[in-house]
This record gives sequence, C-alpha cells and structure tokens, in this order.
Amino acid sequence: MPKILAITGGIGGAKLALGLSQLLGPEQLVFAVNTADDFEHLGLHISPDIDSLTYALAQQNNQDLGWGRQGETWQFIETLASLGGEDWFRLGDKDMALHVRRTQLLASGHSLTQATQSITQAMGITHRVLPMSDDPVRTLVHTDQGVLPFQEYFVKQRCQPKVIDFEFQGIEDAQLNPALAAWLAQCDAVIICPSNPYVSVDPMLQLAGFKALLAPLPVVAISPIIGGLAIKGPAAKMMQELNVPTSAAAVAKHYEGLIDGFIVDKTDENDSKQIKIPSIVTNTIMVTLQDRVSLAEDTLRFLREFS
Amino acid sequence: MPKILAITGGIGGAKLALGLSQLLGPEQLVFAVNTADDFEHLGLHISPDIDSLTYALAQQNNQDLGWGRQGETWQFIETLASLGGEDWFRLGDKDMALHVRRTQLLASGHSLTQATQSITQAMGITHRVLPMSDDPVRTLVHTDQGVLPFQEYFVKQRCQPKVIDFEFQGIEDAQLNPALAAWLAQCDAVIICPSNPYVSVDPMLQLAGFKALLAPLPVVAISPIIGGLAIKGPAAKMMQELNVPTSAAAVAKHYEGLIDGFIVDKTDENDSKQIKIPSIVTNTIMVTLQDRVSLAEDTLRFLREFS
Repeated sequence: MPKILAITGGIGGAKLALGLSQLLGPEQLVFAVNTADDFEHLGLHISPDIDSLTYALAQQNNQDLGWGRQGETWQFIETLASLGGEDWFRLGDKDMALHVRRTQLLASGHSLTQATQSITQAMGITHRVLPMSDDPVRTLVHTDQGVLPFQEYFVKQRCQPKVIDFEFQGIEDAQLNPALAAWLAQCDAVIICPSNPYVSVDPMLQLAGFKALLAPLPVVAISPIIGGLAIKGPAAKMMQELNVPTSAAAVAKHYEGLIDGFIVDKTDENDSKQIKIPSIVTNTIMVTLQDRVSLAEDTLRFLREFS
Repeated sequence: MPKILAITGGIGGAKLALGLSQLLGPEQLVFAVNTADDFEHLGLHISPDIDSLTYALAQQNNQDLGWGRQGETWQFIETLASLGGEDWFRLGDKDMALHVRRTQLLASGHSLTQATQSITQAMGITHRVLPMSDDPVRTLVHTDQGVLPFQEYFVKQRCQPKVIDFEFQGIEDAQLNPALAAWLAQCDAVIICPSNPYVSVDPMLQLAGFKALLAPLPVVAISPIIGGLAIKGPAAKMMQELNVPTSAAAVAKHYEGLIDGFIVDKTDENDSKQIKIPSIVTNTIMVTLQDRVSLAEDTLRFLREFS
C-alpha cells in the first residue's frame, strides 16, 4: 500500500483531501497544511487553512457559504460589531469554539501540531493534519496599496489591491514540522492539491529542507486554474497581476523541477498540450463527494505511473 | 439634586441599580462595582458583576435564566465542549462578544475602567459604571474542600463546599479606582445595593482609602437577606457556614459603623426591631421594573433623612 503526503491550502485543496481520505486510511495518508495565512485576531490564533481542511475532513464544512462550519450562527460577531469590535473577519459562533480551543491549547504550552491533533481527533478525524511548521510564518502581500498582512488583503480588502510580490515573514527561522519530515522520509509519493501556488503551496516549498525531502519522491499536482479561472480564491487575479498567463500550463511551469506529473481539467485539454511535464486530463471540478473521490482515484492512478 | 454613589455586586444589586438609573441622571448617579470575582478563563477577562450590571442597565439581561444576556444562544460553548474545552462557565454566543471585546481593549492598553466605559457606552448606557479598581483583586474561598478561586466555588462547584473564610488576593496592592475616589469626594450619599456582603461588598470596603471616603457621607444599605433567605446567590448559605444568623439584622450588624440607615423587606418587619441602626421596612423583592423603581424611590427618600 502506498504512503502519501497530500499538500494543501484551504477550501480548494481540502475538497481533494476529503476525496483522498475516503480511499486511503490514516496509516497511508497524511496532510501537510499551509500556515502562512494564520493570524492573530481578537486575541485568537486563527489557522484558516487548517480549519478549512478540518471542517472538510469532518464533513462539517458549510456548503451554503463555501467556507466556515456547517449549521453556523452569527450572534457573536454581530454583537461584537455592536460593541465597537472588528467584524471584517466573520467568526461564526461554532467556529469561535475551534479558535478559542486552539488558542487555549497553545497558551498552555502545546504546539500547533498538538493542538491540531487534539481538535481533529475530537471531531472524529483519523488522518493526521500536520501544520507545515509549529513556528510562525506570516504571508505579507506587497501591493499597489502597500504591504498588507495576508488576511487583511484577502478578507478585509477582498483581494482588491494589485499584487506586486509575496513575502513569507519568519520563513528563514521556521522549522519544517518534524512529524512532516519524518513522514516524508518514509512515504512513497506526494500530491499537491489544487491550492493557490503562490500563497498556499509556495510557503511550504520555501521551508528549509522541504524541497530536498520531496526531491526523491514522485510528486503530482492538480491545477487550481480551470479555463483561465480559479474555482475559488484569487489565484487567477494574482497571476494576471504578476504578469503570468492565467492558465493551467502556467501553474505547471511554476512547479517545474518539483513535480513529475500534472493534472488539468477537461476544459483545458488544448492548453495541456503546452505542458512539458507528463499530464493527464480529467474532471477536476469537485461539486459532489463523488467528484472528490473520482479525482482522488484519478490522481492515485496517475501517481502509480511514477513509482 | 443629590449626587449618589451606588455600590453593587451582580444580579441582586443590579436590579436596584436599574431602578436608580430610572430616577437619577448620569450627572447624579455613578455605580461602583465589585471586581473581586473577575477571572481569566479561556484567555478571556471575565467581569461577572460588571457584566450583570451592564446587561441590567441596558435592559438586555436574560430574564428567563436570571443571568446572562437576553436572546442568548449556546453554539459556542456546546461546540467548545465537543472539542474537549471547558464548559462549566456557560458563555453564551452574544455574551462572548462582550468578553472578547473587553479582553481586546485590555490587551491594547486600556484600563478596565476605560474598557467598561467603551462597552457600556456602546450599549447605550449613559451612567458611569466604575470597577472598584483597575488592579486585579481575586476572591479565594477557603472551604472544607480547600481554597477555591471564586468562580470555581460559585459556578463549577455550585457553592457546595462549606465556607470557612474569604481572602481577597491582591487587595493590599490594588488602588481604589481614582474616578471612584473623585466621585466620592464630591457626592452626597452612598447606597449599598442588596448584594452579597461578604463577596460583593466587602472587597470594595477593604480597598485602601475607600472606607475613609465613605465615612463623612450618609450611607444606606438594602438587605440582601429576606425572611432568612437570599433571593439569589449563596449569601444565606455563607452566613450559616460562618455561624452568623441568617437574618437581615445580621447584615445590618455586619455593616455596623459604616452605614447610617438600613432597609429591610416587609417579611422581616419583626426582625427589624433588633436592628440598632435607623431602618425602614418596605417591599424589597424586585420582580418588575416598577418594583425596582419603587425600591429606588424608597431608598432615595430614606437617604434624605440623613442629609
């Protein structure tokens, strides 16, 4: 049985992560999650990508909103606004519990990895969800309107400012999660989920030692760009602003030297001919659970070609 | 027009406080509130007595529960419990907003007085609500089951352990709120609301300089004990365990040397004959807003006898 590491950011990657979790057990599949868009807000440590993955794996994600937790209510944030507090980051009443619990675990001396394990286990998740690092890395977005912390750019400013560059504050001092390094040393292959290459995957790749551990392993990535657009999030807008063609082929090129195979959506069948890396074309738009599982099956089948 | 300081703890005292606030404007009436049962919980600074008074004055108190905020929901605390967090202190979703806002204001350098002002003003309260001190004072309850922080005794253990003594940690170093001292220097009279004498009023009285500022002023207190029972809270149980008769007269005796007048409920008309301090008998059971206003009127009328 193959042992897989799946690298993921938030919502988009988490869809495939759920599909993979339906096919591979906790001894076969581990998740590495971006923490560079974590931030401290209202005294809470918020890890948006870990949370999106957690809610997705627990099948507690809010399908109406496309983010956050199922069955959510908003009494806290509405009351906070009425008291003069900040409400641009929409914290649901149930979601608050996760942030308070994590913050409390961290304050009492647990690492982010331990806090995440405690929370995911409490939600019935059997697979390991590993933060890329227990040390703080914070994405700063250099824009035409100045340097913005990621969540201010992403949520508060709704990605309106034009991106010039990204900076991952703390990346030089952050240690790759040792549990992740240990898993990479024994696993057979790596999947890069359809997450934002610039702000979800790149921070992980820049952690000292991470690329070296990936090098001997077959790595396949799934394009987050479909028909020139991102299903969710600002990836396409960022590519445009960075003067990169908004295409699946450009994502493949971004990962050149790192990945062995690339998966694009049927929509991009023509575009895929420009891709120099071995590629397959399949449906990568994940609406139903079955879509998630099918793409996971296609990905695992494709991976076998490289082992 | 008289200038009044009303000293209050939580629920019981807050009922009369609301009555007083209907009769006297913000230039005439200031509230001094106990903070010795404040505590840090889940990373939040919680001030139960300030909160009870705030919700009462804003007429946002939860009348079904008898504590907490109106229209409350419990998604946060129930989810927190499901994640392995502590749920013995029932934090409602709306109530959470107040604690998060206060904690955030304190963390950004505001004093408890400033944080309280910001929150009460945001809720439309025009009267000043002054914490007894901006410095931490924490009630420890010495019991037959060991020394317990107040909220652990009061909420977690539901006042079951037998009280031996009270300790107000930090009281020697805590400075009387300067705004409170300033008001006392210019006000005409003081009302001690029907709050617990041991854990709500005594901490204030023990703050250095407080009693000296009260000394030149007429002070009247309203008995929190009616017919040998406390309407709300553990006052009667505490008196029993401290070998004090559970009577209004015993409360009057507790305040001897401090108060000039005492108000007891009609139920205790006979008992009132034992009271050596000038007393009046009236209805002190406050069910409706009219009850609160009536007792406030009786109290202000009684106070006039001492000026």
